[in-house]
Amino acid sequence: MAKSKFEYVRQFECEDKLLPNCWIVVRVDGKSFHRFSDVHHFMKPNDERGLGLMTRAAQNVMEDLKDIVMAYGQSDEYSFVFHKNTALYNRRGSKIMTNVVSLFSSSYTMLWPRYFINQELQYPPSFDARVVLYPSDQNLRDYLNWRQADCHINNLYNTCFWKLVQERGLSPVQAQERLKGTLSSDKNELLFSDFQINYNTLPELYRKGTVLIRSKDQDSSPMTQTNQRTLVGNPLHSRARPSTLVLHVDIIGNKFWEENPEILAPRK
Amino acid sequence: MAKSKFEYVRQFECEDKLLPNCWIVVRVDGKSFHRFSDVHHFMKPNDERGLGLMTRAAQNVMEDLKDIVMAYGQSDEYSFVFHKNTALYNRRGSKIMTNVVSLFSSSYTMLWPRYFINQELQYPPSFDARVVLYPSDQNLRDYLNWRQADCHINNLYNTCFWKLVQERGLSPVQAQERLKGTLSSDKNELLFSDFQINYNTLPELYRKGTVLIRSKDQDSSPMTQTNQRTLVGNPLHSRARPSTLVLHVDIIGNKFWEENPEILAPRK
Amino acid sequence: MAKSKFEYVRQFECEDKLLPNCWIVVRVDGKSFHRFSDVHHFMKPNDERGLGLMTRAAQNVMEDLKDIVMAYGQSDEYSFVFHKNTALYNRRGSKIMTNVVSLFSSSYTMLWPRYFINQELQYPPSFDARVVLYPSDQNLRDYLNWRQADCHINNLYNTCFWKLVQERGLSPVQAQERLKGTLSSDKNELLFSDFQINYNTLPELYRKGTVLIRSKDQDSSPMTQTNQRTLVGNPLHSRARPSTLVLHVDIIGNKFWEENPEILAPRK
Amino acid sequence: MAKSKFEYVRQFECEDKLLPNCWIVVRVDGKSFHRFSDVHHFMKPNDERGLGLMTRAAQNVMEDLKDIVMAYGQSDEYSFVFHKNTALYNRRGSKIMTNVVSLFSSSYTMLWPRYFINQELQYPPSFDARVVLYPSDQNLRDYLNWRQADCHINNLYNTCFWKLVQERGLSPVQAQERLKGTLSSDKNELLFSDFQINYNTLPELYRKGTVLIRSKDQDSSPMTQTNQRTLVGNPLHSRARPSTLVLHVDIIGNKFWEENPEILAPRK
Repeated sequence: MAKSKFEYVRQFECEDKLLPNCWIVVRVDGKSFHRFSDVHHFMKPNDERGLGLMTRAAQNVMEDLKDIVMAYGQSDEYSFVFHKNTALYNRRGSKIMTNVVSLFSSSYTMLWPRYFINQELQYPPSFDARVVLYPSDQNLRDYLNWRQADCHINNLYNTCFWKLVQERGLSPVQAQERLKGTLSSDKNELLFSDFQINYNTLPELYRKGTVLIRSKDQDSSPMTQTNQRTLVGNPLHSRARPSTLVLHVDIIGNKFWEENPEILAPRK
Repeated sequence: MAKSKFEYVRQFECEDKLLPNCWIVVRVDGKSFHRFSDVHHFMKPNDERGLGLMTRAAQNVMEDLKDIVMAYGQSDEYSFVFHKNTALYNRRGSKIMTNVVSLFSSSYTMLWPRYFINQELQYPPSFDARVVLYPSDQNLRDYLNWRQADCHINNLYNTCFWKLVQERGLSPVQAQERLKGTLSSDKNELLFSDFQINYNTLPELYRKGTVLIRSKDQDSSPMTQTNQRTLVGNPLHSRARPSTLVLHVDIIGNKFWEENPEILAPRK
Repeated sequence: MAKSKFEYVRQFECEDKLLPNCWIVVRVDGKSFHRFSDVHHFMKPNDERGLGLMTRAAQNVMEDLKDIVMAYGQSDEYSFVFHKNTALYNRRGSKIMTNVVSLFSSSYTMLWPRYFINQELQYPPSFDARVVLYPSDQNLRDYLNWRQADCHINNLYNTCFWKLVQERGLSPVQAQERLKGTLSSDKNELLFSDFQINYNTLPELYRKGTVLIRSKDQDSSPMTQTNQRTLVGNPLHSRARPSTLVLHVDIIGNKFWEENPEILAPRK
Repeated sequence: MAKSKFEYVRQFECEDKLLPNCWIVVRVDGKSFHRFSDVHHFMKPNDERGLGLMTRAAQNVMEDLKDIVMAYGQSDEYSFVFHKNTALYNRRGSKIMTNVVSLFSSSYTMLWPRYFINQELQYPPSFDARVVLYPSDQNLRDYLNWRQADCHINNLYNTCFWKLVQERGLSPVQAQERLKGTLSSDKNELLFSDFQINYNTLPELYRKGTVLIRSKDQDSSPMTQTNQRTLVGNPLHSRARPSTLVLHVDIIGNKFWEENPEILAPRK
């Protein structure tokens, strides 16, 4: 049973080193989460428990992989941004993305009971992941802008859709028909005139999604954001000092980046 | 907040379609499982609970992804073989490997309490995965041979090592020193003369690892293997009919492949 | 001027090792050869000088790169088949394809005056190349079948097209219109009834393209093909012994492969 | 002879789109040019005809591929820089690098007689090529710095080596031995004291290599560089207006980049 005569098969493994000096984004996406959220009775259009659990799992990933400089999550997806000069796993793409999605999945599963207290997990959730490179800071910001714009567009639509279904008694097909072709302004108007809802006053968690960044020295943490920030310790065992900040803020404008210059700052 | 002006970032995503007509192997490996097994008091050299849980998680993956024709596991790793003509996810490598490792991780985590009844999970386990292509049947078999030979070599070593530590009171460093440079025959002799153990009578689970294959019609299932096979239903809910067979057999010789010709058989 | 502080840029180079145990095909294609053949007054639909020069350049490539087991050419393209176990340039795809296309291009240019005696080269010709892997013998043969079927289909069309233009005085647009929607049988009939041409009696060079294989020991060379084979020495200097055979034969059927089993035979 | 049943083989072709927004460098290298330069009696350490022909071939490539913003050559290599936003061939790496190396090879071959008037080409020259991405302007400049530093280091060494061989009668092995372990300063001193040569007065063509850039409007062309610039028309037919400038200047310092800001300037 000589191992050596079989070891030639290692030559079939391909190197997949990611280009240096590019921002690395790993995006994790729920697989068949439409069904998963139905089976587990998620509230519509937003389930605070589900969103909270996603964020908690994402924090676990950030605790473990220190070269992640920020993360952005919405709905059943989370994007992790690794510093463009990270040498993690020698920048092997497969290794990076599988570690992220594995730890995210096991964290989500392990922490489920803390968020869904009366709802047992029916089957193991599954996520996929991809890794994408962005050469410039602007490319990276535009990627994040794309996800946050997507959050807004989907949330506005879903808010209207579920109001029509839940409060007007429309069938899903009817609600879909009602919203077909409407502009953002039409949807805002619909919410306001039919349901007395000012969209802009809905929770920022729903409208902006969730931004995770590393906490700085508390002294240097800008006061203006205090009320939006939640200091979170080690997500599993509260023995550790606070290390991740959970924000629900606009990241499309410049303000966020001016207040947090260390995220994109060069390293070594 | 026009989403469209940011959508150009999608062009940065790379296609990673796997070459057609090659066997696809996804190997999942425990990350830092030395520490993980220490923290969770795994028995040495083999922990039946841990091995059982690995196999149960692997069965979950096979239940979900029907194009997996077989799987092979040992220690903290599992290899999944997709049929060479699978069109799953249009053969996108990232998608295939992340789905496998995600479902494996969440299954391992969710099913932990069934296997480690008195041992709470201390932190979420993490796995990595890679995807490798093998163009010919022989290449694929040699890959599996490599893993099963590895299982044997490691198990023989570990059996000796832990006997020396647990029964002779050697320190890990002393045991390592004692085994340095020994051949397989030396280790067999050591076990036999010092510990009255005939290595070949140890459980096949330890010596051969675990092979998962799809069950055939029960009638056609060869009788000769009955006592080595365990019929297993849907791993999470026993409502389903048996669909995966758990074997601890030699796959390096031809016998296994002659008895299970459907594994490598062409499709479509 | 310390070189070392800049050498980090080498890390940006990507490995592009081709999967082992797969047939490697490099296909070279003329770039803008429609214009090139117009400028250089190529005969239509087939220019013997042009086809001869292509083949001569291809022979040069085969002389230089010994792991090429055969080549197939038609029109302005040539496909080179490297043995599936070649270790040339450590199987680096870029290196293999650029060497092939470079030597092909310089050979074509250098040998131009021998084939186009009264027609000076007006500007340097340009080719592109791609490298494709085929895991099985059948895949490789189907690739070659695809190219030879393409040769036939194009030649049949072009033969009709140019007959209509050259002998019936149709404009290119009219000829195109006349042939639109016609089947192979229609085109054969057109040639026969309008031009008294039996398509199957046209030169095999036009209908089958050109196959290059390595010569075997002359004794073992099957007699039946003698009249189709041309023994060719070193294409540039006739001092060398014959080493490449030029054939214009069907490679879609089994006969060619049965007569030349060494092409696909395993090595090493 | 249905083409369609074979066309499935096209699925084996891999996309190889280069990451957007990165500088694309294609470097062409002579294959076995040690032998090639021996056979063709190149002058040592530098052959003006050979260097001139390399540059002429490179100019041809720049004439043809308009998205090349500059090129840098030395010895038997040339690097072509494509603008980071080029959409040439949809950024397919294989297509870009094979077209460059093919046109370079055929140009070198076709133009050979103009540069080597009394020296016939003995066999077709061959080059290989690779494509590398550089995400930032600094990475690109460091790549070019690396090549220019390499030019200097090699030229200094070769100048010493050939002086020792040609004027002192040392054998190549003796010359190599004499230079082993010497620093740049040692070599400068050797040239000065033994051969009365001030290295810094040798032609910049040898010490700096060759930079090709696009000519700007003649009015805006800075006067200070006039004497270093040669206005070159279409390299093959002098009918066209000047379009490429041939420089032998330092590109490691900032001066060159400050004088030619359009090279790295953003586009579209």
